[in-house]
Amino acid sequence: MVEPANTVGIPLNHAALLKDELDIVIPTIRNLDFLEMWRPFLQPYHLIIVQDGDPSKTIAVPEGFDYELYNRNDINRILGPKASCISFKDSACRCFGYMVSKKKYIFTIDDDCFVAKDPSGKAVNALEQHIKNLLCPSSPLFFNTLYDPYREGADFVRGYPFSLREGVSTAVSHGLWLNIPDYDAPTQLVKPKERNTRYVDAVMTIPKGTLFPMCGMNLAFDRELIGPAMYFGLMGDGQPIGRYDDMWAGWCVKVICDHLGLGVKTGLPYIYHSKASNPFVNLKKEYKGIFWQEDIIPFFQSAKLSKEAVTVQQCYIELSKMVKEKLSPIDPYFDKLADAMVTWIEAWDELNPVTKA
Amino acid sequence: MVEPANTVGIPLNHAALLKDELDIVIPTIRNLDFLEMWRPFLQPYHLIIVQDGDPSKTIAVPEGFDYELYNRNDINRILGPKASCISFKDSACRCFGYMVSKKKYIFTIDDDCFVAKDPSGKAVNALEQHIKNLLCPSSPLFFNTLYDPYREGADFVRGYPFSLREGVSTAVSHGLWLNIPDYDAPTQLVKPKERNTRYVDAVMTIPKGTLFPMCGMNLAFDRELIGPAMYFGLMGDGQPIGRYDDMWAGWCVKVICDHLGLGVKTGLPYIYHSKASNPFVNLKKEYKGIFWQEDIIPFFQSAKLSKEAVTVQQCYIELSKMVKEKLSPIDPYFDKLADAMVTWIEAWDELNPVTKA
Repeated sequence: MVEPANTVGIPLNHAALLKDELDIVIPTIRNLDFLEMWRPFLQPYHLIIVQDGDPSKTIAVPEGFDYELYNRNDINRILGPKASCISFKDSACRCFGYMVSKKKYIFTIDDDCFVAKDPSGKAVNALEQHIKNLLCPSSPLFFNTLYDPYREGADFVRGYPFSLREGVSTAVSHGLWLNIPDYDAPTQLVKPKERNTRYVDAVMTIPKGTLFPMCGMNLAFDRELIGPAMYFGLMGDGQPIGRYDDMWAGWCVKVICDHLGLGVKTGLPYIYHSKASNPFVNLKKEYKGIFWQEDIIPFFQSAKLSKEAVTVQQCYIELSKMVKEKLSPIDPYFDKLADAMVTWIEAWDELNPVTKA
Repeated sequence: MVEPANTVGIPLNHAALLKDELDIVIPTIRNLDFLEMWRPFLQPYHLIIVQDGDPSKTIAVPEGFDYELYNRNDINRILGPKASCISFKDSACRCFGYMVSKKKYIFTIDDDCFVAKDPSGKAVNALEQHIKNLLCPSSPLFFNTLYDPYREGADFVRGYPFSLREGVSTAVSHGLWLNIPDYDAPTQLVKPKERNTRYVDAVMTIPKGTLFPMCGMNLAFDRELIGPAMYFGLMGDGQPIGRYDDMWAGWCVKVICDHLGLGVKTGLPYIYHSKASNPFVNLKKEYKGIFWQEDIIPFFQSAKLSKEAVTVQQCYIELSKMVKEKLSPIDPYFDKLADAMVTWIEAWDELNPVTKA
């Protein structure tokens, strides 16, 4: 039965509708008490918990939540030698959850993120807004000054080409954070007391050809459209870098979305980010990334995929070859990362075999 | 004496500071009673009123405002044969005001725009926000997810390249509209009752390489940086098109800003747009533009200026040649428009001679 729909084509009970089509992925090293606050919004959904660090530790999950949990032993057992592409002692391990999911949509959230309030004091159902974002088209080819034209009460403004108003499918919904903003270590050090209190009531498409810093804290995506590109790289234990896992994924994802004609949205929903991480520890993790990114960004800005790359996997393998060729001269790390990108795709395809029609 | 400055380098009394460096340009056919509501914010500034239509009509300006007024006879007298580049019976005539100004900054506003209120109920000083926007840098080369990083309480997020944080000079500040949104005739016809009630508390840079629909209703710019590109084209009396004056200027301005490394901001400030124009009249003005723009947008999206074009005038003349070559086949109108673009630059340079150092 077709559900009643509003003007932009979202079934009115979309939150319930996607219950069986969406997994929530949570990387963690601690008990998941933070879920208590999320219960009204997240309890109907299935959780995939990726336990980082010591696999012998028991992670407590509040009663009533439906979940599966993977620790390092599980990852090694399931992926065998290919487990090398999954980071350890870093929240980058979350991408294992994207791989084992069998659902169309993923929402991933950090365990220090709580329910935000909108300016009227109402609790923000972050997942509902992500679903709205993913079910509405994106408009990457021309800028709309009234933000998301598909939102209620908004539209395309005068001068917006009519041929572009159908938009493109949205692959990624990037949410934001009240309270502790997602700053790098130097900015944390310089502005230790800065808190984000500005609730910006907007969702917007990031234009084609423009890169953005994708944060993994409050993120949703369409696994079928972009899943294989959501690899969070090699970070943490044994690696020279941390805190660039989501950035790496974001750069790859945006280049591939632009190539395949998919959209990336950012803005609403907000979560309340409770705890600033230690800026000194962060600086140690980030410092190589801070100068490497000065070369990585121009690399991604100029990366051109071939016409032959028509699937996310094909795009990603092409990108891995470019990484090997163009970024390895910066540091041998990128050689290893390029290999891990290939391993990731192999593992993805193994766990997600294409079913013939 | 150096003024006390806040963290982003804006002198605290900037509104007063720019009093002698900014002109307000208002195109009109009626008495300017709307200025009464703006008195607290705009009275300190000098107005340039461009009277459209019958020059024998007297336009009443509320007491206490300092202004100069130009009607069609004045325009013809000052520009002689070059007056042909200034539109008649269309608010596109406003760009004459940009040309005769001798100030560094321009704020232009329509006479059906009133003072908006922010969500707290406070009257919005639109000009003050425009000045803030113009005095802060822009960040067109990489997207910042927390919007304008130079605003109080905001910054660049993790993953934003440090080499790009200095930003570039801001040439344009594009403000928005509460109440009547700036829709085209078809959208007005389909959604006659839609009102914009969403106050989005954000300013953002439009990324390099992305075009936007620039509305002339509530707009400020740095005349020294981009003035000669702010030509509103040939509209209204004797022309086959209307309501594309600001759009035309916006496309040209954005291509030239991208080429010269200048920034364009959009978002705050809001004005309250009081009156919807007649959608049937608008459709008549717009209908050619609605299909022409399907060719014009790709033209501007692919327009590449040469390295030799280092001034706005040089860029604009190059663009006029491309318009003649690439758009004239669509309609002879573009041949005339390309010539008018050259006339505009000649007239600009005549009224704004370069003073030798």
